[in-house]
Amino acid sequence: MKTQVAIIGGGPSGLLLSQLLHRAGVDTVVLERKTKDYVLGRIRAGVLEQGFVSLMKEAGCADRMERDGFPHEGTQIAFGETAFRVDFAALTGTPVMVYGQTEVTRDLYAAREQMDGKIEYEVENVTIHDADGDAPCVTYAVHGQERRLDCDFLAGCDGFHGVSRKSIPEDVRREYEKVYPYGWLGVLSETPPVDHELLYSNSERGFALCSMRNENLSRYYLQCSLDEKVEDWSDAAFWEELKRRIPQQFADKLVTGPSIEKSIAPLRSFVTEPMRWGRLFLCGDAAHIVPPTGAKGLNSAASDVHYLYHALKDFYASGDERGIDGYSAKALARVWKVERFSWWFSSLMHRTADQSAFDHRMQMAELEFLASSEAAQRAMAENYVGLPY
Amino acid sequence: MKTQVAIIGGGPSGLLLSQLLHRAGVDTVVLERKTKDYVLGRIRAGVLEQGFVSLMKEAGCADRMERDGFPHEGTQIAFGETAFRVDFAALTGTPVMVYGQTEVTRDLYAAREQMDGKIEYEVENVTIHDADGDAPCVTYAVHGQERRLDCDFLAGCDGFHGVSRKSIPEDVRREYEKVYPYGWLGVLSETPPVDHELLYSNSERGFALCSMRNENLSRYYLQCSLDEKVEDWSDAAFWEELKRRIPQQFADKLVTGPSIEKSIAPLRSFVTEPMRWGRLFLCGDAAHIVPPTGAKGLNSAASDVHYLYHALKDFYASGDERGIDGYSAKALARVWKVERFSWWFSSLMHRTADQSAFDHRMQMAELEFLASSEAAQRAMAENYVGLPY
Repeated sequence: MKTQVAIIGGGPSGLLLSQLLHRAGVDTVVLERKTKDYVLGRIRAGVLEQGFVSLMKEAGCADRMERDGFPHEGTQIAFGETAFRVDFAALTGTPVMVYGQTEVTRDLYAAREQMDGKIEYEVENVTIHDADGDAPCVTYAVHGQERRLDCDFLAGCDGFHGVSRKSIPEDVRREYEKVYPYGWLGVLSETPPVDHELLYSNSERGFALCSMRNENLSRYYLQCSLDEKVEDWSDAAFWEELKRRIPQQFADKLVTGPSIEKSIAPLRSFVTEPMRWGRLFLCGDAAHIVPPTGAKGLNSAASDVHYLYHALKDFYASGDERGIDGYSAKALARVWKVERFSWWFSSLMHRTADQSAFDHRMQMAELEFLASSEAAQRAMAENYVGLPY
Repeated sequence: MKTQVAIIGGGPSGLLLSQLLHRAGVDTVVLERKTKDYVLGRIRAGVLEQGFVSLMKEAGCADRMERDGFPHEGTQIAFGETAFRVDFAALTGTPVMVYGQTEVTRDLYAAREQMDGKIEYEVENVTIHDADGDAPCVTYAVHGQERRLDCDFLAGCDGFHGVSRKSIPEDVRREYEKVYPYGWLGVLSETPPVDHELLYSNSERGFALCSMRNENLSRYYLQCSLDEKVEDWSDAAFWEELKRRIPQQFADKLVTGPSIEKSIAPLRSFVTEPMRWGRLFLCGDAAHIVPPTGAKGLNSAASDVHYLYHALKDFYASGDERGIDGYSAKALARVWKVERFSWWFSSLMHRTADQSAFDHRMQMAELEFLASSEAAQRAMAENYVGLPY
C-alpha cells in the first residue's frame, strides 16, 4: 500500500491531521493500535482553545461542537475560602470551548468515514523504516497479517508510549522530564456541575478541580498521592473530600451522585527535541506531555497539527520546504511556553509534602497577587485561552 | 529619659520614621549600635520606588535626591544573547529612582541634625522591657554608662540581627525562611555604567547584574557559590567573568577599572509574623529579608514605615487606634507580595547546580514569555516600580 502521509495513531491529533490534509488534497492512511471504541472510551480534558476550534472548522468538523459545546468566558480560582474569577473574554477577547475530547474524536471519526478516509485499526508491531532516507515505509500486522505502507512522510501521533519517538535514534534525541509527586483522582458523574464555569481550588488539603462536560455531566478531580488506589475511594469518600477542598459557597451547591468513571492519573511534564527526524514528524503526546492543570494536552497537540498541516500542504502545493524545515523549531517554541504555563499552574495550585512553610506562603502570595492584578490575570488568561500559533 | 516613640536602629528606616514623626509633632529618640560613619559606610541597593520617594518628600528630605537621582523608566533583561527592555513608564506610568542608600541615609541624618533630632550612637546591651505592658522602656549603655529610655511605643528598625524581633517571645513568633544556594559578589567602581539603565542577565554561567549610582560610579554583581572568598576574585577576574555573563552588545561597551569595594552577600528570604507585639512594632529587615534581585530591601522597609508613621500619627492626633491595631496585618499583606516578587525574580534569573535540564528550560520559557507578553511585563513592572501602599 502507498500513501503520501502515513499517520501513526488514530487519536484526535492523527484524525484531525488526516482530515485537514484530505481536504487539501493530500492522501493519508491512519494506523491505530486499538479499536475505534477503545479510542472513544478514553476520558480526557474537554477545554479547547480557540485555535483548536478554528482547526476543527477548517477540517469541516465543528458543527456539533458549535451546537453542543459550551463557550466559557472565564474561570473561578479559589484558595481557602477566597475565590476570584479570571474573565478570559474581557482580558483577551477570547473564550474557551468546553467540549469533551471524546466528542471531538467522535466528530473526527464521522468526518473521516464520510470521506472514506483510510484508517487501519488494531495494527500491531508497527515499525518505521528509513525515516531519515528518501523512501520511508511502515510495516505492521493486522490480525496476524503482515502489511507494508510506503509513504513520503510520517506523522507520529501515537502518544507518549508510541513507537514514533522511539524510532528516532537515542543520540539524536534530547529529553526533558519532570515527574510531580502527586496524581489526580478523577470522577465522572451524571450530575449538574457545581458551577457553570470551572473551579480550580488550592486548599490546605490539596488541589481540587470542578469541571464539566454539559448540564448533566460533571468531571471532578482531587489531588491524591501516587500510592493511592481507585478501589480505596468510595463515591461517598470522594464527595466528602471534594466538599472540604472547595470554598463553602461552592460546596453548598455541590450535587453528588454515583460515579460513572473513576481513575487515577500521574502528572508529568515531558518534552523531546527535535520534533522532526528526516521524514518523520512528531505531534502531540508523542513529543510532549503536560500535567493536566489548565487542560493543555490536546490543545498543544493541535498547534503541532496546525504547523505540520501547513508545512505539508505547502510542500504538496508548491514544493515549498520551508514549513517542513522549520517545523521542529516552530512547534517547540510554542510547546515550551505551554509547558511553562502547565508547570506554573500546577505548581501554584498543588500542595506537596516537602513544601516548606515559606513555599506555601509564596503560593498564597502569588494567588493574592493574581486575584488583585489585572495584568497578572491577563498574562494567565493569554495562556489559558491559547497562545497564538 | 522619656520619649513618645523609641526607635531602635539608626539606619534609613529608623531615621525616616523619626523624621516623619517629628514633623507630625511626635517625639522620638533613635538608638544606633554603631557610629554614623559606620552606618554611612554600608553599601546597599539604590533603586527606589515612587512610594519611597514620596515618603522622602513628606519627610522634607527629597531635594538632593530629586536633583542628583536618576529616574529610570525601564530596565534591560537578558538571557543568553537575547536582551529586551521592560518599559516601566509606559506600562505603569511610574519610573523608579536610582539614588544610593548611602545618600538616602546621609540626607536623613542631615535632616535629623537640622531639627535637633535625638540620636544616641554606639549604644550597647539594648534591652526592651515590658513591650506588652502599658509602660515599656529600653535600657542600654553608652561608653559604659547605663541609660534608660521610657516610651509609649517602640519601633524595631534594627535589622535581622537586632534585638527587637528577638524580644518577641518565641511562642508568639512564626518565622518563614528560604536560603538560596548562591550569593552575590559585588563590585563598586568609579567607571561609567555599561548602560544608562540596569541590566539583569541570566547566563549559562550564572546571574549578573549591571547597576549604577551615577555617571561615573557603577555597581556590578555576579552570582557566586557560597564557599567563594572575596580574596579569590581579582578585579581582572571579576571583569572577565562579567563580560562572559552579559550579551556581547553590552560586554563590548563595558568600561573596567579598579574596584573601590568588593564583597560577597548570601541571599535569603525571611519573614516573621506578627510584626507587632504589644507596643513594639517591627519595621524593615527586623521583620523581613528579601534576596536583592529587584532591590526590594529598603523599599519594603519604607512601606512598613509608611503604615507605622500613619498609625502613630493618627493615634497621637486623635487617639485613633485602628492604624496601630491593623499595622501587622496591613504591613504583612504587602510584605508577602514583595517576598513573592523577590523570590520569583531571583528564581527566574539564577542558575543552580541542582537545576534539572527541565527546570532550566522553564526559566528560558518564562523569559521568552516575559519578552513577548505585554501583560507579563506589566505584571512584572507593577512589582518593580512598587505595589501600592
